[in-house]
Amino acid sequence: MTGDMEIICIGNELLIGKIANTNAQWMSKRATFLGITVRRITVVSDETEEISSALLEAIERKPQFVITTGGLGPTFDDKTLQGMSSALDRKLEVNENALRMVREKYESYFERDRIKESELTPPRVKMATIPEGTIPIPNPVGTAPAVQAETGATVIVSLPGVPSEMEAIFDQTVAPMLRKASSNVSFYEKRIYLDGIFESSIAPIVDQVMQDNPSIYIKSHPRGIEKKPHLEIHFSLKAATSEKPEEKLEKAANQLARLVAQKGGRVFTETEAAD
Amino acid sequence: MTGDMEIICIGNELLIGKIANTNAQWMSKRATFLGITVRRITVVSDETEEISSALLEAIERKPQFVITTGGLGPTFDDKTLQGMSSALDRKLEVNENALRMVREKYESYFERDRIKESELTPPRVKMATIPEGTIPIPNPVGTAPAVQAETGATVIVSLPGVPSEMEAIFDQTVAPMLRKASSNVSFYEKRIYLDGIFESSIAPIVDQVMQDNPSIYIKSHPRGIEKKPHLEIHFSLKAATSEKPEEKLEKAANQLARLVAQKGGRVFTETEAAD
Repeated sequence: MTGDMEIICIGNELLIGKIANTNAQWMSKRATFLGITVRRITVVSDETEEISSALLEAIERKPQFVITTGGLGPTFDDKTLQGMSSALDRKLEVNENALRMVREKYESYFERDRIKESELTPPRVKMATIPEGTIPIPNPVGTAPAVQAETGATVIVSLPGVPSEMEAIFDQTVAPMLRKASSNVSFYEKRIYLDGIFESSIAPIVDQVMQDNPSIYIKSHPRGIEKKPHLEIHFSLKAATSEKPEEKLEKAANQLARLVAQKGGRVFTETEAAD
Repeated sequence: MTGDMEIICIGNELLIGKIANTNAQWMSKRATFLGITVRRITVVSDETEEISSALLEAIERKPQFVITTGGLGPTFDDKTLQGMSSALDRKLEVNENALRMVREKYESYFERDRIKESELTPPRVKMATIPEGTIPIPNPVGTAPAVQAETGATVIVSLPGVPSEMEAIFDQTVAPMLRKASSNVSFYEKRIYLDGIFESSIAPIVDQVMQDNPSIYIKSHPRGIEKKPHLEIHFSLKAATSEKPEEKLEKAANQLARLVAQKGGRVFTETEAAD
């Protein structure tokens, strides 16, 4: 669907809990504030069939964008492009533009740092070997180019897994595409904090405020434990500036705060209340 | 497959990047060290159809376990059990054991903290309304019971999204099931750190060491940027204690260190080298 996005994160290190999936959080947040709806995040291993299945399943759901991270490097287990090749049924081939990008990187490293072995070894050529009909995207921070593909109404962009590289390419190349797709709608949010009232007791209040403010989504997040209730209430909406999103959020938050106070709960704004 | 697990995390807050998916990392790590293979992590929104689809897709891949987190609370957008009901085609019904667990929780809260409204309001009864033929699991920390279901060869356990509750129920109820399923195989790992050698240059070394040590999986993780190479090399295997996993890791790490040193790289063990 227009404005929809899926994220696929590739890497055994995520499935063994070695690292937190900070890439998914960073991208989700960035895309959301650009007005895009992130529908799903999928984490799979470094196996070609897993990557290929995850891509095919995402494509079948017809999001406008599928962004992948990880698996573009020079080692044997960097298999994202093999997965893409299999999913899209397009042969892997050495791409001349990608090869130029990789060569220029190594040449620049050697010039500046005088490290030996400048030749384009097979692991280096591997980073320029991409599915036919796809486009390499320059990596301003690292070596492996990102890769952009199109299939049906879906644009796939495969980004590296190293956070600094992923973030740089996202901001340079992906963000402008997302901005264009969301046609000036942005994400707005507001939080308030409640003490001394159960989540189960504010449930009907949340229902009522959402009914009275149909553009606003409200979600309560327990902080601490239910027997000593402390809640964060998160208000959000997607809107154009002309729709006065801040005023709408303010109105909904005020109504909820009023109803909570009537039930004996304490309301805090701006900062999270101390326990 | 026996010993395989999938994780499904439910919550809009994960798809808008509001929070990091620490639950997925915590569970993946725990399950991995218990000898289980986490095959996939899927994050979906609070919509019933999204939860139901993610569950059905996971079940079709026939893992031994599907563990979900989030969406068990008292509010309108806690829809995990509606999703499970739809995926398994089993009606939601008030479960007497679950209702007793919820009632006892609120009674204990009121006794200790003298908070008003002890009655079982609809949002509270909702937490005891679970798909027919499923089993409620006590929540030692919070209010909402977890829920266990079986379908084919797959056990589904739905845990709360609040980390302290999820962790307590996981350790009390899920971990023993995983331990039994992995039949005394555990996960072992070792790390060494390299400086002054490109990831692309160690690729053939990694290939060779993996060939010579077929039980060991080796993955290189770039730290810093490719032009000033600093790498973490992660060695892992699943094995029973009797297979001497530590010795095997040691042997592989020593061989890799030797080959890297021959190429002029610097090797650090135990702690990450300073930049």
